[in-house]
Amino acid sequence: MNLSDKGKIVRISVDAMGGDFAPTEIVKGSVDAAREEGVEILLVGPRDIVESELRKYDTDGLSIQIVQASEYLVEGEHPAMAIRQKRDASIVVATKLVRDSKADAVVGAGPTGGVVASALTILGCVASLSRPVVGGVFIGLNKKMVAMDLGGNVDCQPYQLLDFAIVGIIYAEKYLNIENPRVGLLSIGAEEGKGNAQNQESYPLFKDSGLNFIGNVEGHDLLSGRADVIICDGFVGNIVVKFTEAMGNATARWLEKNLSGKIADEELRALTMAYIAETNPAGALGGGPLLGVNGVVVVAHGRSKAPEITGAIQQARYAVETGLVENLKVELEKAHQAIENRKEQ
Amino acid sequence: MNLSDKGKIVRISVDAMGGDFAPTEIVKGSVDAAREEGVEILLVGPRDIVESELRKYDTDGLSIQIVQASEYLVEGEHPAMAIRQKRDASIVVATKLVRDSKADAVVGAGPTGGVVASALTILGCVASLSRPVVGGVFIGLNKKMVAMDLGGNVDCQPYQLLDFAIVGIIYAEKYLNIENPRVGLLSIGAEEGKGNAQNQESYPLFKDSGLNFIGNVEGHDLLSGRADVIICDGFVGNIVVKFTEAMGNATARWLEKNLSGKIADEELRALTMAYIAETNPAGALGGGPLLGVNGVVVVAHGRSKAPEITGAIQQARYAVETGLVENLKVELEKAHQAIENRKEQ
Repeated sequence: MNLSDKGKIVRISVDAMGGDFAPTEIVKGSVDAAREEGVEILLVGPRDIVESELRKYDTDGLSIQIVQASEYLVEGEHPAMAIRQKRDASIVVATKLVRDSKADAVVGAGPTGGVVASALTILGCVASLSRPVVGGVFIGLNKKMVAMDLGGNVDCQPYQLLDFAIVGIIYAEKYLNIENPRVGLLSIGAEEGKGNAQNQESYPLFKDSGLNFIGNVEGHDLLSGRADVIICDGFVGNIVVKFTEAMGNATARWLEKNLSGKIADEELRALTMAYIAETNPAGALGGGPLLGVNGVVVVAHGRSKAPEITGAIQQARYAVETGLVENLKVELEKAHQAIENRKEQ
Repeated sequence: MNLSDKGKIVRISVDAMGGDFAPTEIVKGSVDAAREEGVEILLVGPRDIVESELRKYDTDGLSIQIVQASEYLVEGEHPAMAIRQKRDASIVVATKLVRDSKADAVVGAGPTGGVVASALTILGCVASLSRPVVGGVFIGLNKKMVAMDLGGNVDCQPYQLLDFAIVGIIYAEKYLNIENPRVGLLSIGAEEGKGNAQNQESYPLFKDSGLNFIGNVEGHDLLSGRADVIICDGFVGNIVVKFTEAMGNATARWLEKNLSGKIADEELRALTMAYIAETNPAGALGGGPLLGVNGVVVVAHGRSKAPEITGAIQQARYAVETGLVENLKVELEKAHQAIENRKEQ
């Protein structure tokens, strides 16, 4: 994409102090992103620390500024408490740059709770969402399916599930290039009327929504490819995601036992590591835009090294350029208006 | 066990016409059970058909009778409708033998819906259960853990979940030989108060129940061994079970792709088949006592051949001799009484 067409270089604030390998890897990844992605970077953290890292690189011709923040969050703090007590924490300052239109997006590598709490407190959610939606591709064995909510929201009302579907559709369209994604409601039987009370209340709402709703889908459809977007309560989603990760680890152990001596140890290790990666939701979900927040916030893995930080910044740029947040707002508004219109008829 | 100690030979009615390989394999498995298990068998079905099968074997000294039933259920019928219309169906007649104390247990290999419908209509459930509980060991990767409910009951009330726990404990004690099984409530966070409204209401009830309650467990604990009995709503359980089966199949395909050429085709096929067996809930759940029914009803796989029928009859004998149903009634009654007593205090 020719950025000059848009007349504006994307400006991204990065929490230089967030993540297991901060600030070294964060600064390195940011410098690479400035060079490779042509973005402006605002590195947020204690000026002396960030500056001494930044001096390691040739930044000639790159647009990288340091924004002073005297504190930063550490793993193990209560996120909401921490951001209240540390008003000058790097993630707080970085997120405020987005609120104040001094940056187009913020990237933080952790603690995840702190990135989410800052986003919620400082940016808030788009209308009709009370919390961000947790979702996306969660299993490598089915890379073309978006599932949500995976743990952000429980005891969801039908209208919330419908909002998740709209978020999921936009995610599938923008990130997986799926046209007119097929939406399924996770249940325990395919026909309308099957499932629990939540399903039974939600089904007619989905049917009348104008979305490409294919009806109820079942547990096996999380892998079958029958739907592109699968919607469930965050309670079910979270249990499935944690079970998936456990299946990966248990299967790796099973393969070690059953293949030991049959293939070379090295090959076996590569196989089990590849399988764990295929079934590791953290790998798929750890990094990505926080969906539903009123601004572009990209959460990077806590274990991110420079290339992952560059990737997260690339994701942030992409979300800004494709208007992820604006699209979400428009589509949610359209859907709500359509529901209102039907009610009035 | 010396049967004469009990002063009574266990008498089992078998639906000779149920299952994919009826009547041939059912009759053969029943003859073997009469010989190996020392049980009395009542073979139920059209007399001429059953008799011509039975004549193939030397039944000298065995206690096998034929009980006439003119009809039988076939796959694809609506179970409840079918048993209402076919009043002389073999599964109906076989189940009535238990109701009328002419048999101690009934074994049916399908259609599963028909066996369940007959059990519910003719025997009913023990007090406080409105439907049988679907549960047991559902994944070979964790053979010492009982999960329930796996799809029999949705939108469960806290007291229902507690009843499932009692059923699960008895199952774990009798079938897995686990002493004082640890009970966990499936949730999305370990601490009390985590999870959905159902969790939050159920937790105190479990805590005060006198059961060996270890608190909330999470999705990964379905494989971790932290709990012996894991309790959830049948909605969540059913989704997890179907997802597990899909994981087995998807993983088998993944292994075929990633191991092809690295080990012999035959070895690879054996490996994937073994893995599918480890993750096939139908294998674990397809055959077993219907838990919560007011009488011993063993559902055998639809695909059962003679050895599986003999196994199902062995299970039925075991359930009768260990007093599965009586134990359930007593323990449920005790738990309800304890809850009532606490309420009054």
